[in-house]
Amino acid sequence: VILTVTPNPALDVTYRVPGLTPGETMRVDPPASRAGGKGVNVARVARQAGYESRAVLTAGGRRGAELEQDLAAGGIPCTIVPVDGETRSTTTLADPVADTATVLAESGSALSAAECDRLRLAVRRDLAGAACLTVSGSLPPGMDPALPAELVGDARRAGVPAIADVVGRALQLACEAGADAVKPNRRELAETTGLADPLAGAARLLDLGAGVVFVSLGPEGLLAVSRERRLHARLPAPVRGNPTGAGDAVVAAIATAWSDGVHELPELLRRATAWSAAAVLSPLAGELDPAFRDVEPGVLVRDA
Amino acid sequence: VILTVTPNPALDVTYRVPGLTPGETMRVDPPASRAGGKGVNVARVARQAGYESRAVLTAGGRRGAELEQDLAAGGIPCTIVPVDGETRSTTTLADPVADTATVLAESGSALSAAECDRLRLAVRRDLAGAACLTVSGSLPPGMDPALPAELVGDARRAGVPAIADVVGRALQLACEAGADAVKPNRRELAETTGLADPLAGAARLLDLGAGVVFVSLGPEGLLAVSRERRLHARLPAPVRGNPTGAGDAVVAAIATAWSDGVHELPELLRRATAWSAAAVLSPLAGELDPAFRDVEPGVLVRDA
Repeated sequence: VILTVTPNPALDVTYRVPGLTPGETMRVDPPASRAGGKGVNVARVARQAGYESRAVLTAGGRRGAELEQDLAAGGIPCTIVPVDGETRSTTTLADPVADTATVLAESGSALSAAECDRLRLAVRRDLAGAACLTVSGSLPPGMDPALPAELVGDARRAGVPAIADVVGRALQLACEAGADAVKPNRRELAETTGLADPLAGAARLLDLGAGVVFVSLGPEGLLAVSRERRLHARLPAPVRGNPTGAGDAVVAAIATAWSDGVHELPELLRRATAWSAAAVLSPLAGELDPAFRDVEPGVLVRDA
Repeated sequence: VILTVTPNPALDVTYRVPGLTPGETMRVDPPASRAGGKGVNVARVARQAGYESRAVLTAGGRRGAELEQDLAAGGIPCTIVPVDGETRSTTTLADPVADTATVLAESGSALSAAECDRLRLAVRRDLAGAACLTVSGSLPPGMDPALPAELVGDARRAGVPAIADVVGRALQLACEAGADAVKPNRRELAETTGLADPLAGAARLLDLGAGVVFVSLGPEGLLAVSRERRLHARLPAPVRGNPTGAGDAVVAAIATAWSDGVHELPELLRRATAWSAAAVLSPLAGELDPAFRDVEPGVLVRDA
């Protein structure tokens, strides 16, 4: 089981707004609402690729109830930690005319100390039998940035490899806790380390204690940096589509590869790059284009 | 009791988005959600001005439940007709930097024939003891445009004066049913009658059977046209603010004036113009600036 943790999930609400014009009144169809958050996307992608997954997340208020119902309807196994604060929503105004997505991202509700404890306890319980733990996305306002690192520590003590897709202080602490992999994008890595060069930034995170540092470079591909190797993977030609969720597909690819016993960096990179491209080709975050298996053999990997 | 009918209510959701920029991701605070729809605003305004009111409306799904809860929390007496379809929402992106409001308006869910019957029956029951009936706003998709006219007919048979704030075919039919007042704005009147001149358009609606035609002209004031008089009211100086809900304040002003036994057009116009200005000065639709009583003596009324 790929166990994914989403400390700050969101109800993703998408309006289709052809010709979005500030200051105008526009007629729109009812929005599509969907359980979201990076860890939820990781669980969805792993499941779509044929792996068992379980999403651990908090839910509160009306939007929490809607999120829970959507996960149940989608058949995504999950462990819900009920919380008092209202689950946030992320509202996307997708404009098919301008080909833009305008995103209104709420920061979420703070968790109480007791709620944080319950989240950690829920993860610890579910670690029994897990093949990999992933912790993804932003933290609710005021949450101790050590929480992802604590989850990484719990996983390591349980003999379960852990991937952290978090940023800033939480990323530094997760590295210090010995995360087996971390996956910042280029901007997040630069913001966390203060180093503009991705290879230098990755080296810094290795120094802190990370096992492998994957750096997503968007259309330019994916870096993997370990103490032994520095590799760069890319597609023969870039794909166009919706980049939201591409990073989550990378995390799902690494987690599932590890659960298959695959640990060689070139193989990990091939799967991660292929799934990332398949996520871009799929209109919805948390889903892969069905051709994702066909993309893998074409991925180009060379030394960085 | 001022009885207001809202055939197509909405949950009004307002995000504050300083510097709304299409194509960008913006951090936002959780939105404010509020029961909305023109008839609901009329009931709120009447109540704020010290009159008993009751809102009759449909509610369905999650957003219907949220709307119902907000009305209960606000102490607005209401008669809810439960329906299967999800209540629509109207999402406003208020940009305090550009001073614009971008509105995403859903058209709403269709009602079944049985649901339309139940709405009409609910209104008929509540007409006992009503001082005035108002029917306001758009109709759900597919609703027979005769429904507002039927409600006007029911009111007249019950000896209750009726105001229709609807457009197009529904407005024509409401006039034919003998609505005591109608209140299109200039654009709605032109669209309904095909006549660009508001006085000519108002005359057309009188010919159809309306008692008085009030035409809101935005910052240019308010017309009142009856078979006897044509009057124009305006403020000494225009006010700036949020025009949403100004028309509902006009309807509330007429309804409450009638319930006070006030029927002279100049007095109706003074109250309606003052309340409309107070609605513009208030940031929320369905609320009056507390100074609304002080504005009334300054309103200028002359022959149009």
